[in-house]
Amino acid sequence: MKPVKVGICGLGTVGGGTFNVLTRNAQDIARRAGRDIIIAQVATRHPNPAVDTGNVAVTTDVNDVINNPDIDIVVELIGGYTIAKDVVLGAIANGKHVVTANKALIAVHGKEIFAAAEAKGVSVMYEAAVAGGIPIIKAIREGLAANRINWLAGIINGTGNFILTEMRDKGRDFADVLAEAQALGYAEADPTFDVEGIDAAHKLTILSSIAYGIPLQFERCYTEGISRITPEDVEFATELGYRIKHLGVSRRTDKGIDLRVHPTMIPVARPIATVDGVLNAVMVNGDAVGNTLYVGAGAGAGPTASAVVADIIDLARLIDAPAQASVNHLAFNDIQDEQVLPMDEVETRYYLRIPVEDRTGVLAGVATILSEKGINIEAIIQKEPKAGESLAQIILLTHTVVEKQMNAAIAAIEALPSTVGNITRIRVEHLN
Amino acid sequence: MKPVKVGICGLGTVGGGTFNVLTRNAQDIARRAGRDIIIAQVATRHPNPAVDTGNVAVTTDVNDVINNPDIDIVVELIGGYTIAKDVVLGAIANGKHVVTANKALIAVHGKEIFAAAEAKGVSVMYEAAVAGGIPIIKAIREGLAANRINWLAGIINGTGNFILTEMRDKGRDFADVLAEAQALGYAEADPTFDVEGIDAAHKLTILSSIAYGIPLQFERCYTEGISRITPEDVEFATELGYRIKHLGVSRRTDKGIDLRVHPTMIPVARPIATVDGVLNAVMVNGDAVGNTLYVGAGAGAGPTASAVVADIIDLARLIDAPAQASVNHLAFNDIQDEQVLPMDEVETRYYLRIPVEDRTGVLAGVATILSEKGINIEAIIQKEPKAGESLAQIILLTHTVVEKQMNAAIAAIEALPSTVGNITRIRVEHLN
Repeated sequence: MKPVKVGICGLGTVGGGTFNVLTRNAQDIARRAGRDIIIAQVATRHPNPAVDTGNVAVTTDVNDVINNPDIDIVVELIGGYTIAKDVVLGAIANGKHVVTANKALIAVHGKEIFAAAEAKGVSVMYEAAVAGGIPIIKAIREGLAANRINWLAGIINGTGNFILTEMRDKGRDFADVLAEAQALGYAEADPTFDVEGIDAAHKLTILSSIAYGIPLQFERCYTEGISRITPEDVEFATELGYRIKHLGVSRRTDKGIDLRVHPTMIPVARPIATVDGVLNAVMVNGDAVGNTLYVGAGAGAGPTASAVVADIIDLARLIDAPAQASVNHLAFNDIQDEQVLPMDEVETRYYLRIPVEDRTGVLAGVATILSEKGINIEAIIQKEPKAGESLAQIILLTHTVVEKQMNAAIAAIEALPSTVGNITRIRVEHLN
Repeated sequence: MKPVKVGICGLGTVGGGTFNVLTRNAQDIARRAGRDIIIAQVATRHPNPAVDTGNVAVTTDVNDVINNPDIDIVVELIGGYTIAKDVVLGAIANGKHVVTANKALIAVHGKEIFAAAEAKGVSVMYEAAVAGGIPIIKAIREGLAANRINWLAGIINGTGNFILTEMRDKGRDFADVLAEAQALGYAEADPTFDVEGIDAAHKLTILSSIAYGIPLQFERCYTEGISRITPEDVEFATELGYRIKHLGVSRRTDKGIDLRVHPTMIPVARPIATVDGVLNAVMVNGDAVGNTLYVGAGAGAGPTASAVVADIIDLARLIDAPAQASVNHLAFNDIQDEQVLPMDEVETRYYLRIPVEDRTGVLAGVATILSEKGINIEAIIQKEPKAGESLAQIILLTHTVVEKQMNAAIAAIEALPSTVGNITRIRVEHLN
């Protein structure tokens, strides 16, 4: 059987990893794919010292790869929206299949890209775009295809998970750990994408689209970062039997679909609560299968290359088959628009930390407001002031309530004369 | 596009679940598969009260399904080796694709079945044979296809995991929990397959074949059950920071491949150590991806049906494609024989519990023997006799050593006059 020829655009961390995995495991990969997979050309502006390109043709111009008539599959590993988008659309226009690890590109421009690919009868594969080496796209699009997906929740940003893990393990504060993560290369100089949840929102957008058959709609995803989490909250969460994770959550409800990224408390008994450090994890609940969980490295040369090369192998098997043999880009052959719930309408549980004056009647005032708003309390702790301080804290967990109702309660409690400063609110998910 | 027609043989728990999932989610399944999937016929000797077969033709003779010219895919959900094997081979002979949940059949007769299927140009799918609803076959055959798999380890028998979880949570003993599991329907009247590790060995045989590209060789799998685990061992494991799980372990080494099912101590910090109750979990380590973990329900109508129907959907997409488009039955297109290590040659860590007389010099005697055999001790606890008892216990953890060396050390320690009765040995895996 004729070999399949691959052109790689971008030879940074992921591109280099992809080159090396394809080369190192070439023999086993051919035994799996049923044919050889050959790197025909690489486009890069900067040599990667971790890669020996050997006899492979190297160019600095991505157009050489896109226009190379020998190449069957173009692998886009440049990142960003500009050149990357041109490479993907250019490759499609030339009738080539595409593999990309670019979550931002798929989340924001996926609709245009998949339409172009379908018009040309080619596939765009993007397993590496979510949760690195974990084959979560394949699990949802294929492995769980029998199910009506009810909800999914994921730790899908390794930087954020590293920061929260360090904060808990060592009692450190956010800014301190972030600086270390930047020094270690886990976090970018501008950490906004990671710590404010934008990167996770890109990934959640993709996961929810293939889970429910809805359009990609990154712009409707609620995002809240982890920068306001304090060591105190981390400690109280532990005391209550929870862990704080930066979670992407999406749930199918009668009123619409939740789509939200925010700090979340999870019971420590759930295996996902113990997924620490830079690891990623995704839970998916289906009507037939119940809960499933997938854990692995969410980034790095090897793990991301693992996903990119798996896509290449899938394409190598399917390249001579009719289009019907390939999985739909967004899992379903007709995407149906469903309402994404505004955050105000989302129902969840809450942890509240309320700084209050240390005098009698304060707890009763808080409880009265919650009761008036129809919010049931699941657990409550009152913490006396620490030595030398004058503020007490009320820590409480609520049952499920609509967010707008909770917002009203928080505003009312903050307006009480006994409340000193702002309430910290962390959403709680039981994931069961 | 023409609908795909399915015939289901067996309408018990899994057959009934498959019927119901295909019916309930028919519309979403068609949106995913790109065509309708229709149940054309069911063969069963006993009606299932959980299933309304409606207008679907029902027969008591599996041959009616196998010989039905309308049927594209035969789903074997009878179990066992006799009728099930005839159904699978009969369906293949008639040019039909097959989906089965039958781990024993695949582990023992897979070679013959896959050879017949390949000769006929049809596929035999078996995602449901291992770890129920967890798409672990797909993860290894496709999702991790870029990797050279180094090792895998799984909690792949829900009954055993339920028993060990209850023993730990409630301090109960094995026989007591087993009786309850039988009353609850989690364990069979004859629990041998589950608690002695035979069922897990069937599944490990399949996983290791698709991980390494080696033949199915159930007969070479070492199996050791959980019936000798005592509440005392469970408690000491907890004290040392471990959990005891009944684990299937397979590792690629320079000398050959490990293939073994036995009680195993795992550090509690690993997410797999917190997978409790009837849940299943599989860890897979690949050279590119590192560690990955997959968790979910290992049995039951819904989870198993989830896997069976996912296979049907894959077949529905691929049914008009050339054979090259389908994944190889055992992942690789050429299966290469590699030595399976005899248990004597396996290297691992150990937990030993040594009942001894309570007098000075005993610990020194044990330590001397271990030292002579070249076995390094990682941790050691000496437990004084409980009130009213005269025996002390030495509990120790070793570094990695070859099993035959450990066997020699155990024999020598048991021969010491200070040792009273038998040593308990539990293998330890760090899974990192």
